[in-house]
Amino acid sequence: MMKSKALKIVLLVCIILLSVMIPPPEGLTKEAWILAGIYLAAIVGLVSKPYPEPVVMLVAVALSCFTVARFGDSPVKSGDVLSGYASGTTWLVFSAFTLSAAFVTTGLGRRLAYWFILKFGGTTLRLGYVTALLDLILAPATPSNTARAGGIVFPIINSIARALGSDPKDSPRKAGRYLMVNIYMVTKTTSYMFLTAFAGNALALQLISDIFNIHISWVGWMLAGMPVGLLMLAVIPYIGYKISPPELTKIDNVKIATSGLETLGPMNMKEKGLVVIFFSALLGWIFSHYLGLNASSVAIIAMGGALLFNIISWNDILQNKGGWNTLIWYGGIIGLSATLSKEGFFKWLADFMSHHLDFLGAGNETIVIIVFISILVRYLFASGGAYVAAMVPVFATVGLVTGTAPVLLALAILFSNSYGGCITHYGGAAGPIIFAAGYNDIKSWWIIGTVVALLTFVVHMVVGLPWWNFLLNSGML
Amino acid sequence: MMKSKALKIVLLVCIILLSVMIPPPEGLTKEAWILAGIYLAAIVGLVSKPYPEPVVMLVAVALSCFTVARFGDSPVKSGDVLSGYASGTTWLVFSAFTLSAAFVTTGLGRRLAYWFILKFGGTTLRLGYVTALLDLILAPATPSNTARAGGIVFPIINSIARALGSDPKDSPRKAGRYLMVNIYMVTKTTSYMFLTAFAGNALALQLISDIFNIHISWVGWMLAGMPVGLLMLAVIPYIGYKISPPELTKIDNVKIATSGLETLGPMNMKEKGLVVIFFSALLGWIFSHYLGLNASSVAIIAMGGALLFNIISWNDILQNKGGWNTLIWYGGIIGLSATLSKEGFFKWLADFMSHHLDFLGAGNETIVIIVFISILVRYLFASGGAYVAAMVPVFATVGLVTGTAPVLLALAILFSNSYGGCITHYGGAAGPIIFAAGYNDIKSWWIIGTVVALLTFVVHMVVGLPWWNFLLNSGML
Repeated sequence: MMKSKALKIVLLVCIILLSVMIPPPEGLTKEAWILAGIYLAAIVGLVSKPYPEPVVMLVAVALSCFTVARFGDSPVKSGDVLSGYASGTTWLVFSAFTLSAAFVTTGLGRRLAYWFILKFGGTTLRLGYVTALLDLILAPATPSNTARAGGIVFPIINSIARALGSDPKDSPRKAGRYLMVNIYMVTKTTSYMFLTAFAGNALALQLISDIFNIHISWVGWMLAGMPVGLLMLAVIPYIGYKISPPELTKIDNVKIATSGLETLGPMNMKEKGLVVIFFSALLGWIFSHYLGLNASSVAIIAMGGALLFNIISWNDILQNKGGWNTLIWYGGIIGLSATLSKEGFFKWLADFMSHHLDFLGAGNETIVIIVFISILVRYLFASGGAYVAAMVPVFATVGLVTGTAPVLLALAILFSNSYGGCITHYGGAAGPIIFAAGYNDIKSWWIIGTVVALLTFVVHMVVGLPWWNFLLNSGML
Repeated sequence: MMKSKALKIVLLVCIILLSVMIPPPEGLTKEAWILAGIYLAAIVGLVSKPYPEPVVMLVAVALSCFTVARFGDSPVKSGDVLSGYASGTTWLVFSAFTLSAAFVTTGLGRRLAYWFILKFGGTTLRLGYVTALLDLILAPATPSNTARAGGIVFPIINSIARALGSDPKDSPRKAGRYLMVNIYMVTKTTSYMFLTAFAGNALALQLISDIFNIHISWVGWMLAGMPVGLLMLAVIPYIGYKISPPELTKIDNVKIATSGLETLGPMNMKEKGLVVIFFSALLGWIFSHYLGLNASSVAIIAMGGALLFNIISWNDILQNKGGWNTLIWYGGIIGLSATLSKEGFFKWLADFMSHHLDFLGAGNETIVIIVFISILVRYLFASGGAYVAAMVPVFATVGLVTGTAPVLLALAILFSNSYGGCITHYGGAAGPIIFAAGYNDIKSWWIIGTVVALLTFVVHMVVGLPWWNFLLNSGML
């Protein structure tokens, strides 16, 4: 472990040293070249993880500040390196993370789950659909997959599986195996339906917007993602049910839900307040255009409301480590990316690529190829965020070079970064949590994941592309 | 408690409602007027504390985002409101807070303390001077008074007092009472000697710079503050010794220090690493001009180094709640202040004041009056940071109106915000920690505090002003 960590650090140091020693290619300044080396090292660091993500980013920020200072006459300043911390994207994610935490701490998430189970959860299959419905309803205000799938849905489904007598060791096939893998596939699907349903979405959109110079609103994102997402949600619980059929089909949902609701007691003021905040945020995002607000402001105001009315306390926020991790590393990568952009790096990269990618055309087939590759490389990434930071700028640059329709390609990549994570049990933060319950084997998980990912891919390419094109042409994006 | 909290909230709501209902005065837009109302409410909130500081600021940021969005054609954007989070000042404080924490977690602070006690701590009076020396040496890299005085110096002096048989209840006068109050007076003095010796310094400098358009470097600050500070450090332990004389004068310092050093064991790698980082940061700050670095970049690079070499872990940072509190509320207030500045609010305020302050001239006597008032109002403030946010912009604006030498007034106010806190036992974050040990009575604390504060005031006015003027004229500031 120590040895592998040392090797990883050596690799990162080598990347940066190479950028310092090798003279910059034509069209790039020495400063931009070294900053690109630091950026690449940061991304390799995010993937190989010799340190936690925020540490990797803070060190990269420190090195970038130093580099910028060494080149006194540079077009960028240390303020540019830090600019990501004032980015609306960073605060959108941080604020919505706070709301995610509120669904866990107030108990509202659990209450919703038991209500749905009471109403609709009479069979194992229907429980699969209840999972989808619950995740869908929570999704718009819970960009933390860890909070939504790992913190709300998973604990309840896990305790239900145990209550049904499905033991991870002795009888995983009774119900747990199906229910567990279904949570993950479902959350990876709802994740691409709303800008605020997955932290990586806002980051990816920010990185893409820097390169393509496009704008996609919260509503535009929903209009593009929701129809294809709903289509997939309609079949995913069934796919898992067929590939990994549970032995138990009937469930005494009334007993489970009633006892769960009894434990929660009557709905308290905090939960009621959260319902109001949640719907206000939803309305805010939907009508943001008319209100003159952007998605980030809506999220910040929602967080402000939640704090003002004590729905979430400052202590809850302090203890919400995921929020701080994300604030530090998203702010860092957004700042570095903006700095590189200002240095003309992505323009240079596009020029450079255009000499080597002339076999790719401007048509939709290029989008299909890029998206397919984007799914394949997800095998290498244990974090949706790291994948976004590493690959999204590259795919966007390739698209820029080939001249494909930027918004169509953008949507296709933005969505594939969620459902591409289906293919492994480590493709997103919720995966390892669910997998650790012990019900699942890698083989059936990966088979279901591959089927879901490929089917989603086909639906997005065959149904999605024409639909997004229609939205674009009719001015709804 | 609940009732007083509700009253405080009602007051804040009233302030904001008044700014919405009362039409703006001539020279200010409706938007600027409401933003000023939110700013005022935030400051009153920081002082009255119905919520923790970060919550007050996040709600103020949310309201400001909303206000900015409602006025579509405004000169400021929601990005301006968030700009404080990318401010070098915010990151200077956050990074140096991390170093403060490292002195506590690695044990280096305690080791230094025992070394000094071993070498110089033979009498109670000399222990008072050891406290001053220790605090002085730690000061440049520990802007957290809580970490320096509360986390490093206090626990050791507290355990020494107990070891000497001085009990808070039965025998406070034996040694504890003197030693405790001395910690506080000393740390309030070192706090103004370096830009990085107190979190509020960077915040105050940022706020003042926005109004006066001046620049004071890390070295300039030290040159101005250190001579007067050293003068005061030479007498403060003696003042406390005379006003609150300890009954015990001799101390078996060798026994105490040896046993303390034995507990710590040999110096470990983390401590050695921290020594290197500490001196690098110090050299970085001193020679920042030649390196092309600013003070913030030096601090960020030092933090990066500490993380890279595992001197402090990400988990230590996550648990360092003071750092997160400061990040959120400093970033918020700096952003709000920058937004108001962009809206022309402080210019308007200066114009407005100039009609009512024409009895004040441009000479040094105005500086003397302002600084004296700045010390008096410290009775009302239970936090150095809240005082800075509330009063420093006002005093700076008054100075701007009267036309006093901006740099001289700036230094005088920047320094008085630290030593002004001497006058009460709640004037700075370390105060309540030390007071809670139980050795001190309010009366003797306030008497010593008043003597120290007034003497410092006289020294700063009589010796400081000419000295700062000399530095200014010789181009060293």
